[in-house]
Amino acid sequence: MKQALVAIDETAARFVASQRVARLATADPSGAPHVVPICFVLDGVGDGARLYTALDSKPKRVQGHGLKRVRNIVSNPRVALVFDRYREDWNRIGYVLVTGVAALVEDQAERSAAEALLRAKYRQYRSMLAPGSSIIRIDPVRVVAWGDLEPDPPGAR
Amino acid sequence: MKQALVAIDETAARFVASQRVARLATADPSGAPHVVPICFVLDGVGDGARLYTALDSKPKRVQGHGLKRVRNIVSNPRVALVFDRYREDWNRIGYVLVTGVAALVEDQAERSAAEALLRAKYRQYRSMLAPGSSIIRIDPVRVVAWGDLEPDPPGAR
Repeated sequence: MKQALVAIDETAARFVASQRVARLATADPSGAPHVVPICFVLDGVGDGARLYTALDSKPKRVQGHGLKRVRNIVSNPRVALVFDRYREDWNRIGYVLVTGVAALVEDQAERSAAEALLRAKYRQYRSMLAPGSSIIRIDPVRVVAWGDLEPDPPGAR
Repeated sequence: MKQALVAIDETAARFVASQRVARLATADPSGAPHVVPICFVLDGVGDGARLYTALDSKPKRVQGHGLKRVRNIVSNPRVALVFDRYREDWNRIGYVLVTGVAALVEDQAERSAAEALLRAKYRQYRSMLAPGSSIIRIDPVRVVAWGDLEPDPPGAR
């Protein structure tokens, strides 16, 4: 059942935290949408829960890649993020849609803490995230949860 | 390497067609983005290739679900779609980003053909898509391909 929440509740938080990739939608001032897969961490649950994503340096990335989302965020901080699980058994499909406001993290203590969370979640960042990388924070404004958000049973896909 | 294409070329088409789910971003007239996972089919390759997605009736769906994307498309037909593969080996990550224009399919022959393509790709639609369901067409305007778009070797994830 579809549910609109005021914050990321425990069920939604567990589902979101279990995901390795999310899709981040931004829009430029003219209303043209853009969407990319991102790595992320969820920090906290309920009111005050925040999401962080790094402007990282994945392999094969070309100069300037990722700037579109940053240009969009600077000119229009409203974003939408979807965390979803696709399964061929459509009774097991679920997603969490977070509408929120994005900003580059300016506070250095917050930036360092978010970088540590990202490194803890993704070991790939040990070699692929430059220390001091820019990080984007997303503050949820509205959360919609739909479908089956229970964790997969062991071994299931 | 990131590549901007004028159309969905053969490599991108093979990758897109191999995906079971995509993420569709829309924006309302005020520039607020929205993003949802969708089932889809790709019809064709190169110039004239189109994407179709149905306003379907997945289980647990409540009345009115899915209308946000339709309201957005009616008021702002510009959309972005991402087709991506996440792998823990980040050398194997790849995605295709399609920026395009969306419209409800009005022509009944085109709608029926698209419905048949969707039913052929997703056997779930045999029970979960009402005959005559509304279908959205997306005409690509710009295509960006990034990373590894080769099909997975058998058994690999």
